[in-house]
Amino acid sequence: MPYFDAASAAPLHPVARQALLAALDEGWADPARLYREGRRARRLLDAAREAAAEAVGCRPDELVFTPSGTRAVHSGVSGALAGRRRVGDRLVVSAVEHSSVLHAGEAHAAAGGTVTEVPVGRTGAVDPEVFAAALGEGTARDGGTGLGGGTALACLQSANHEVGTEQPVAEVAAACRAAGVPLLVDAAQSLGWGPVPEGWSLLTASAHKWGGPAGVGLLAVRKGVRFAPQGPSDERESGRAPGFENLPAIVAAAASLRAVRAEAATEGARLRGLVDRIRARVPELVPDVEVVGDPVRRLPHVVTFSCLYVDGETLLSELDREGFSVSSGSSCTSSTLTPSHVLRAMGVLSEGNVRGTRQAGTESADVDRFLAVLPGVVATVRDRLGAPAAPSPAPDGDDLVVDARGKRCPIPVIELAKVFGSVRVGGTVTVLSDDEAARLDIPAWCEMRGQQYVGESPAPEGGHAYVIRRTS
Amino acid sequence: MPYFDAASAAPLHPVARQALLAALDEGWADPARLYREGRRARRLLDAAREAAAEAVGCRPDELVFTPSGTRAVHSGVSGALAGRRRVGDRLVVSAVEHSSVLHAGEAHAAAGGTVTEVPVGRTGAVDPEVFAAALGEGTARDGGTGLGGGTALACLQSANHEVGTEQPVAEVAAACRAAGVPLLVDAAQSLGWGPVPEGWSLLTASAHKWGGPAGVGLLAVRKGVRFAPQGPSDERESGRAPGFENLPAIVAAAASLRAVRAEAATEGARLRGLVDRIRARVPELVPDVEVVGDPVRRLPHVVTFSCLYVDGETLLSELDREGFSVSSGSSCTSSTLTPSHVLRAMGVLSEGNVRGTRQAGTESADVDRFLAVLPGVVATVRDRLGAPAAPSPAPDGDDLVVDARGKRCPIPVIELAKVFGSVRVGGTVTVLSDDEAARLDIPAWCEMRGQQYVGESPAPEGGHAYVIRRTS
Repeated sequence: MPYFDAASAAPLHPVARQALLAALDEGWADPARLYREGRRARRLLDAAREAAAEAVGCRPDELVFTPSGTRAVHSGVSGALAGRRRVGDRLVVSAVEHSSVLHAGEAHAAAGGTVTEVPVGRTGAVDPEVFAAALGEGTARDGGTGLGGGTALACLQSANHEVGTEQPVAEVAAACRAAGVPLLVDAAQSLGWGPVPEGWSLLTASAHKWGGPAGVGLLAVRKGVRFAPQGPSDERESGRAPGFENLPAIVAAAASLRAVRAEAATEGARLRGLVDRIRARVPELVPDVEVVGDPVRRLPHVVTFSCLYVDGETLLSELDREGFSVSSGSSCTSSTLTPSHVLRAMGVLSEGNVRGTRQAGTESADVDRFLAVLPGVVATVRDRLGAPAAPSPAPDGDDLVVDARGKRCPIPVIELAKVFGSVRVGGTVTVLSDDEAARLDIPAWCEMRGQQYVGESPAPEGGHAYVIRRTS
Repeated sequence: MPYFDAASAAPLHPVARQALLAALDEGWADPARLYREGRRARRLLDAAREAAAEAVGCRPDELVFTPSGTRAVHSGVSGALAGRRRVGDRLVVSAVEHSSVLHAGEAHAAAGGTVTEVPVGRTGAVDPEVFAAALGEGTARDGGTGLGGGTALACLQSANHEVGTEQPVAEVAAACRAAGVPLLVDAAQSLGWGPVPEGWSLLTASAHKWGGPAGVGLLAVRKGVRFAPQGPSDERESGRAPGFENLPAIVAAAASLRAVRAEAATEGARLRGLVDRIRARVPELVPDVEVVGDPVRRLPHVVTFSCLYVDGETLLSELDREGFSVSSGSSCTSSTLTPSHVLRAMGVLSEGNVRGTRQAGTESADVDRFLAVLPGVVATVRDRLGAPAAPSPAPDGDDLVVDARGKRCPIPVIELAKVFGSVRVGGTVTVLSDDEAARLDIPAWCEMRGQQYVGESPAPEGGHAYVIRRTS
């Protein structure tokens, strides 16, 4: 059965499995002990560190293993911020970072620090000039604390986990170097495909994203970068990752990173071809679809699109029934009922959102079957929701108000589309909605339809009023 | 080859291995996802949590999985302290806790908190009345912070990891309840052998101590205990352990905990017999040995003794050469060249220290061979160091001063023993030493020899002067 969510987790790579089994026998002892089992464990740990460091492009003594990519990010951010406390308390991050970076930022803000989010364009990429400008923001201040107000750390992912867009890491790294600000690159999605461009100060990654086991993250800190690990520590992993090393998993992680790198060029080209096919064919096969993310500067294995008039949860469950495992950034698939922060920052449609991420071994036939199944699935969901299928009726009506309060995504947009054709050109439709997704999806609908989004304001009886002007 | 360091790490239990392999195939996906692979992972995670909670004796929603026992302790201590910040900032711990608890205490002290260490007796156990008195220590204070000076949390291990002594957990838990102070029990060494006595508020454990895989700790927090997780969090593990769950290892941890518990009564009795044999025979076979830890209230699989006039590092390496993997609390085996904090708190001899911890499957024949090998190994090391083998010469000399500065354990004690017989009864020997172990081992030698330890004072030219009076 085709599994299309490799960006969440991937089945264990055969090399990882083999290495894990061998290391369960050879690497269970404490590498800090001096007897033979301990020495054997130490040799395995040292070899794994060397292999991982080579793939990352750093020295072995710059790299430690953490219990997950998330923990690597949390430790990296807090250690770098603390190491530069005297410079300032500002953390600069892109608006589309992984939640682990944003959570680290929330913890920093809760402790009194400042977090600046750098916006992204419609493809999901930051503009290096905008990022550079953010580094210099913040007034010098003292306030009796003896601390400066400068930027302590900047974070930029190598590529986005939801839409696959690659970030301009080299350009941003150059800007950071010019500003004297260390840059942490979260390479969780890209490290299996190749090294991160030069210029980073800290780098994080997660083994289970490249087919390694769960339970292993990487944190690399360049020599010379001020770094003060936070929280209790011990003698393990240079004092940067306390607790007994998960050695069998570490061995498997390093072995599989080497293996996927060896296959990266071939597999990347193959998967890029499959994704290109999906990006081209989906809008031809399914009406009212927005394919998102950069068409060229992107990861080879991620494809994301959103379908108007469809709710993500039903779409996912219908695709699951057909045997396809995908994820979604739609609000209805989130526990908080808000659309993905990535789609929101990009300003693209969030309803009916589908993220498909392939792994090595995905077959062309799986993609064919996906393309064969998708149009019927979307049509079924739209039928069930009463989405407008036909062109709008003749335009002659007055300005309209649609009260969609109490209704969740995608109903507010469906209600808008149903009545829009009955308003004269130059007239307006006002949609009242208390659904968080409407704020994103109504402007996105206007963009897709070439209509004018006038703006939003709080509605007197709750929710917001979204005003759309008919221009054609 | 016999491996005698199960208290550090144990080879994977066959049940753990089997469960791990099955879960690698079934449990690699993200349990937060709604498609079939995710639902399957969720079911495995739920089942593992139920099994672990049953073994711990708590509700499944009171228990989370962490990346290690150390991380469970760090999160448990910081979360409980923060949850009771308004009550006070005092942390009470026994002096013989695992380093992870002491490190959490150091971090608390560095942040301005107060840490009280409860001393232990010569067997390594706390006195419940002394522990209870420590809970009430500390003056009420405000100091403009609005915070009380009361005790926020107490920590007591279920049993000691170096000497095997069981702590009076039930009595201390009753005292904590009476004082209204939550008790965190670090059950890392004992959980495989049976549940912790009732009365704890928080409990931590580590899977690789019971034959489960590395990378899994347990943190249980009773409902009603104030708990505020510190640091960045996410939606995983009730917000108490961020990062992608290490599901295959979690499944293996839960399965093996159940398996070792089923074998605990039989295996415990068998290992207790083997340990009893070592405790009885070693002092018969090797002169000048101190067997440490409680002879009765102790873990079934741990035995620890110290040998006068022997350095631990050489002893370990000679035993390793003979095929025995043991650990040691001697100063020379520590990276900081200080004796184990546990031996120090107990006030027992630290030189030539050996900790042997058996695991299920240790054979009686291995113990026979250990007992056959040990006397020769110790004699060889003592010969090499020039330790006094014969009784002292006739007593007639004046008070003596021995300058052992610049010499490491066990040389200062050997120098003392060499000259001691030449001093008249009532006379003194003053040993000058700058070795940290002397502070512990010279009084311990007096205790073993029935001589009077007068005391220590700083020596004018560096180090300390230790004065011993001959009484017989």
